Amino acid sequence: MTAEAVDPAAWTCPVPLRDSPTVVMGHGGGGSMSAELVEHLFLPAFGEAAAAAAAAGLTDSAVLTVGDGAARLAFSTDSYVVRPMFFPGGSIGDLAVNGTVNDLAMSGAQPLCLSTAFILEEGTPLADLSRIATAMGEAARRAEVALVTGDTKVVDAGHGHGVFVNTAGIGLVPDGVDLRPARVRPGDAILVSGDLGVHGVAVLSCREGLEFGTTLQSDTAPLHELVAAMLDREAPGGNPDVHALRDPTRGGLGASLNEIARAAGVGIEITERDIPVPDAVADACGILGLDPLYVANEGKLVAFVAARDADRVLAAMRRHPLGRGAAVIGTVVEEHPGVVVARTAIGASRIVDMPLGEQLPRIC
Amino acid sequence: MTAEAVDPAAWTCPVPLRDSPTVVMGHGGGGSMSAELVEHLFLPAFGEAAAAAAAAGLTDSAVLTVGDGAARLAFSTDSYVVRPMFFPGGSIGDLAVNGTVNDLAMSGAQPLCLSTAFILEEGTPLADLSRIATAMGEAARRAEVALVTGDTKVVDAGHGHGVFVNTAGIGLVPDGVDLRPARVRPGDAILVSGDLGVHGVAVLSCREGLEFGTTLQSDTAPLHELVAAMLDREAPGGNPDVHALRDPTRGGLGASLNEIARAAGVGIEITERDIPVPDAVADACGILGLDPLYVANEGKLVAFVAARDADRVLAAMRRHPLGRGAAVIGTVVEEHPGVVVARTAIGASRIVDMPLGEQLPRIC
Repeated sequence: MTAEAVDPAAWTCPVPLRDSPTVVMGHGGGGSMSAELVEHLFLPAFGEAAAAAAAAGLTDSAVLTVGDGAARLAFSTDSYVVRPMFFPGGSIGDLAVNGTVNDLAMSGAQPLCLSTAFILEEGTPLADLSRIATAMGEAARRAEVALVTGDTKVVDAGHGHGVFVNTAGIGLVPDGVDLRPARVRPGDAILVSGDLGVHGVAVLSCREGLEFGTTLQSDTAPLHELVAAMLDREAPGGNPDVHALRDPTRGGLGASLNEIARAAGVGIEITERDIPVPDAVADACGILGLDPLYVANEGKLVAFVAARDADRVLAAMRRHPLGRGAAVIGTVVEEHPGVVVARTAIGASRIVDMPLGEQLPRIC
Repeated sequence: MTAEAVDPAAWTCPVPLRDSPTVVMGHGGGGSMSAELVEHLFLPAFGEAAAAAAAAGLTDSAVLTVGDGAARLAFSTDSYVVRPMFFPGGSIGDLAVNGTVNDLAMSGAQPLCLSTAFILEEGTPLADLSRIATAMGEAARRAEVALVTGDTKVVDAGHGHGVFVNTAGIGLVPDGVDLRPARVRPGDAILVSGDLGVHGVAVLSCREGLEFGTTLQSDTAPLHELVAAMLDREAPGGNPDVHALRDPTRGGLGASLNEIARAAGVGIEITERDIPVPDAVADACGILGLDPLYVANEGKLVAFVAARDADRVLAAMRRHPLGRGAAVIGTVVEEHPGVVVARTAIGASRIVDMPLGEQLPRIC
């Protein structure tokens, strides 16, 4: 991977004006522009109705207690607008199922069911829609979630873009599982489940005007079984003490680490050479001038684990097909709270900033 | 109201080719084109993953049992693409909250929380987004639901249309409440909660190229408290036996009645002069050549109630501010299963067909 920090201000394509009076692409990139939109527009506008969510800290899914405490549910939603809709290794349909399954899994939940809502552009071939829906059915079967309710709207030609998909999902959080950023503390080991940057580069490789050859395929996959293996609730030494999980999608690992550092009020130190980045990703990023730390993933997670349990969580991850490439990449520290620092290949340090937006947008 | 049946095949604007290889506006209209898309494309493509939903019958929300039977949840989703985004009496933000609250309420559920997902077109004024989000916060506070999780995506200018909103919602179904089309049976009384066609005409009145003067304001409102009053679980004579509820949004009362008639395998007879249609709606429909039976509502419901309980349910509705205009409009019959028949003002009968699509699209 490149050892240079990306300076987003030097980009002209997707980077937004911070004080723009209109929506810019960066508002959807999962970086600091997205966070500002939530903090400065949505939360004040929603007011009291979102007060509990604001107080709980914004995570990939909300955890709710229902039925007089009888059940804890995880609840999450995402819309999917990735272009092109079909790419090496998957489609918008796979993302729409796996992405929401993974948002639930990051709360430690066992996903139960999804809703599916489509916004279709007039003139879209029904064959494309059918292919997307078939991919959703297959992904749902693989993840063992039911598709239980849905909606379809159609917008005029030129006012949409083929197929947009929204899924929302409900999962059941097992007793005793409590994963959230606020539990992350100094000393925690930071683990990733495998190669980074694969989904983003696979999508970019077939984007109009940017086609380049790659053998990479999107890593889209449901992660809840990997999570269940990591939490191994029947382990002889008791539950491993996993504090928080993230799936580093939009904004990549760089955005996820920054979010956790800020939410938990801790510093993060990572070692660049320990971060698994395949040559094909590093090569493509080198050519395109991207930093793999900010490239989107769809079938990977980052885990914050109590130091004493790091080895057995790593071993559990490596035993699972989706965690075979797992690695310890860093540590949570008391110093520089809110800041992520990377030790580079030559032993120097650099700050890994929160990205403003996605380096190239519409990746999920 | 007009006593003439609308023949959708005579329309040229939104009416689709049934065998079109591409998406047409009618696929999003909540009529038979929408139903065909679900039956012939989505359900076969989803396969096993949607088998339970297909078997349960497709309703506005799914009812799930979680936590070893500890709680019954209603789960629903809708995307909102109404144009214009602001109209007399409300906005896309109000609809996005009230619409999903109402889908939950039609299962008899007490709505608990909503997710909010936005697809924003690059270049949309942030002031518009803020106005929409503020309306959502106010509607959520009024309906006493929490906004607990969300997502924002941005699409390139020219590939979206301002703001699209998706909400999904979770509600808790009280013990003993069981509302579904299959419970509707011959002899049931059919009630509506008030004036029909108001939302649709209010939106049309300000649609580009179609502006006309009207004093009508959208009836968008949350209906769960009206439903709770109708189910009055502390009533001295025991729970009134309400069999099924629908909110007649896209496709209007005509589509809702046809859906119930088909799902329950019963006939439906309604009396046109008993259907509350305000003069302003009737006038606008007369000018535009629309049938009020197919015009969308956002704050009304239709109820199927055991005959012996019809009077007290009607009285309970009329005591609630959102049911003051409630009326009995017809009866469920054994004859002509799956077919809705209206007795016209002159005493003749006409068949109220399932509409193909919305008479004018993007009304919600």
